[in-house]
Amino acid sequence: MKVVKFGGSSLASGQQLEKVLQILKDDKERRVVVVSAPGKRNERDTKVTDLLISCGEKVLAGKDPGEEVAQVIARYADIARELDLSSDIITQIKQDFLELLDGNKENAHSFMEAVKASGEDNNAKLVAAFLTARGLKAVYVNPQEAGLIVTDEPGNAQVLPESYDRLQLLREYEDIVVFPGFFGYSKSGDVVTFSRSGSDITGAIVANGVKASVYENFTDVDAVYTVNPTIVSKPKEISMLTYREMRELSYAGFSVFHAEALIPAYRAGIPVHVKNTNNPLVPGTKIAAQRSNDNGPVVGIANDKGFCSIYISKYLMNKEIGFARRILSILEEYGISYEHMPSGIDDLTIILRQDQLIHIDEGELLARIKEELNAEEAVIEHDLSLIMVVGEGMRHNVGTTSRAAKALAEAGVNIEMINQGSSEVSMMFGVKEQFAKKAVKALYEEFFQ
Amino acid sequence: MKVVKFGGSSLASGQQLEKVLQILKDDKERRVVVVSAPGKRNERDTKVTDLLISCGEKVLAGKDPGEEVAQVIARYADIARELDLSSDIITQIKQDFLELLDGNKENAHSFMEAVKASGEDNNAKLVAAFLTARGLKAVYVNPQEAGLIVTDEPGNAQVLPESYDRLQLLREYEDIVVFPGFFGYSKSGDVVTFSRSGSDITGAIVANGVKASVYENFTDVDAVYTVNPTIVSKPKEISMLTYREMRELSYAGFSVFHAEALIPAYRAGIPVHVKNTNNPLVPGTKIAAQRSNDNGPVVGIANDKGFCSIYISKYLMNKEIGFARRILSILEEYGISYEHMPSGIDDLTIILRQDQLIHIDEGELLARIKEELNAEEAVIEHDLSLIMVVGEGMRHNVGTTSRAAKALAEAGVNIEMINQGSSEVSMMFGVKEQFAKKAVKALYEEFFQ
Repeated sequence: MKVVKFGGSSLASGQQLEKVLQILKDDKERRVVVVSAPGKRNERDTKVTDLLISCGEKVLAGKDPGEEVAQVIARYADIARELDLSSDIITQIKQDFLELLDGNKENAHSFMEAVKASGEDNNAKLVAAFLTARGLKAVYVNPQEAGLIVTDEPGNAQVLPESYDRLQLLREYEDIVVFPGFFGYSKSGDVVTFSRSGSDITGAIVANGVKASVYENFTDVDAVYTVNPTIVSKPKEISMLTYREMRELSYAGFSVFHAEALIPAYRAGIPVHVKNTNNPLVPGTKIAAQRSNDNGPVVGIANDKGFCSIYISKYLMNKEIGFARRILSILEEYGISYEHMPSGIDDLTIILRQDQLIHIDEGELLARIKEELNAEEAVIEHDLSLIMVVGEGMRHNVGTTSRAAKALAEAGVNIEMINQGSSEVSMMFGVKEQFAKKAVKALYEEFFQ
Repeated sequence: MKVVKFGGSSLASGQQLEKVLQILKDDKERRVVVVSAPGKRNERDTKVTDLLISCGEKVLAGKDPGEEVAQVIARYADIARELDLSSDIITQIKQDFLELLDGNKENAHSFMEAVKASGEDNNAKLVAAFLTARGLKAVYVNPQEAGLIVTDEPGNAQVLPESYDRLQLLREYEDIVVFPGFFGYSKSGDVVTFSRSGSDITGAIVANGVKASVYENFTDVDAVYTVNPTIVSKPKEISMLTYREMRELSYAGFSVFHAEALIPAYRAGIPVHVKNTNNPLVPGTKIAAQRSNDNGPVVGIANDKGFCSIYISKYLMNKEIGFARRILSILEEYGISYEHMPSGIDDLTIILRQDQLIHIDEGELLARIKEELNAEEAVIEHDLSLIMVVGEGMRHNVGTTSRAAKALAEAGVNIEMINQGSSEVSMMFGVKEQFAKKAVKALYEEFFQ
């Protein structure tokens, strides 16, 4: 049994839904379909979810949401018309939506959650109607009915463990289950949405619940690429990578999806298969616990900007038990999480995401560090990029570090920082932001060409 | 005005003292001489300090210390005889020493401190007598009289700031001041010794006090070498290095002296000059705040063994504010200080000196880390060597990392860990102990041949 998730662009139009139909017909094991809300049809289009947010906000502000309501319904209606579906489904969607807007607004948060979630929910109804109209037996299943129970954290819902047992019952359906992504229900029965990539999360939870043989994630790219295609044109595709590799790549800027969304699948050991709705015959990228190590030590190169470093030095720092711990306590007080902490003998560098400092008085922070730790120097350097060279094969491959460092040197890129732990699935280089692209290109050429 | 410190081997025999005399005659600026106790004359010899410890312990145990007393006095007497000095000085040393052994033993610690310190103290008297006999005006000055006041921490005395002003008065002496190293006096008037390299510390304190133009540290090697001579035969000498470079090299195994001993000189910005008593015409090694960067990016390569790593992993560790801080708190509870902490996205490696774990139940420590932090993995790896490639010039030298990593790769050495902070005076590689020598040789060849 396979759980198949389709992203917004895969469901943006009737033409796209025909592809979805074909994909489901091609493999009878595809028994559970998790759907996003309709995405953009083109660059200038607006996502249904964004329309819904404007709509809900207008209602809460006591304004007339007529225009947004019309736009939302038009998106579904366009698709239904394109597919020659009976207008009943659109009538039902419209009625449900107007009822929702007319409903209880005492808790503005809960109201907005339900309005946002309606994008996926109504799309699931539409997709189920479409599949049925084309002769596939398919049924819309509501997350509450299926038992997807989550914590009451709007926009950041966490699945509750008891959900998995309940979701297992989805195996019993004879029809194809069409399941809306992005949200679950709290114990008190309110709609609560997941964080970004919410439909990916739903897919992983459902895959775990039904113990799927694979969780297929259909999107609009042929595969996960070895490097950002905006930096290197037509980069190689990754055929297989491990959860850990995906996690490292995702951390440092790979946006195919958030590795966190995979956790429920990872915990159940269910492989994830990234495929292209628009090109379903290409092999895509498989993510699993292990992979055969036959394509060199490096599987991908990621980079992310927007980091800064706090450099702290003190002669004989190294002799003081608790020095680093005290620095980290100060950062914690400011709510700052750090990424890495390379150290010399008497100095320490803390790498963190720069945006965390926006509302912090940097001078005050540095003064506190200097004063409380009696440090000689405490300096912030802004605008660093982190480049991550990722691959399970690196650990026992003498020379990978050498090749990477040599490629950077030959490209004239100075390495501000290297961080390589003892379990190196990755090797991290810190460089100044203006050198990041050059560095990524040089590393790509070294390891993939 | 120069402060000159002579180590034990420079003062082990009459022949050595003649060299000291010549060195002082060669430069009239050498006005303050700090002396160690007589060291070994040959491999099988015993240091005076070690004889003194046996002697003191026997006295405290109520045993007859006659044999040790005879040996101690014989060392001084041998030197005096070799130099044709009047026997008066030996008579005085013997009398002082017997009085000391006969004195107050209520506080065993204080008694042992005074016995140990007598090695330097009596040697200072002997050297002053010798210089005077050879026509140089020289005078023994007692640290209490000179105002060298320290904390009451036996074997780990810390100089009190008021000492510096008092020591400044040593400038007023017309004669050459001969000053015993290794100890000061507490406020209550007890002898308290410094830690290892104690005479180096005295020299640095006195140099600071008198605002010396240079602190000359005479020992038995021509210079600080670029690498351990037991690993690479006849390595290049370092002509000049910075305090920070010396500190990094000393941290990782360079034993010329402890960088900590230099702190008082470092704080006053006084250059330190390492020279060879047995070969005073060679230039030696200068240590100062800055150096001209004309001999390549790397100044030296040090290595030290006896480290281990604790590897901790947890999926999404990176998202938890305070994770590292909590690990460090646990280590602090065990009194463990760590050296470095390289990290991946969801893992962390803590490098520490292995001997700290001798009295610790490693299984218990790992279990606590796993339990309290809900970590997935916590593993200790033993027997690591750290190799430090040191040089102020590395920071802005594109390619140094690349050269180092390439040299290691070509020698077939796998790098377990790299740690390079943003102020890289050094670059640190962790390798398994059995590969350490091979690694050091490869790096030496890359940077010095």
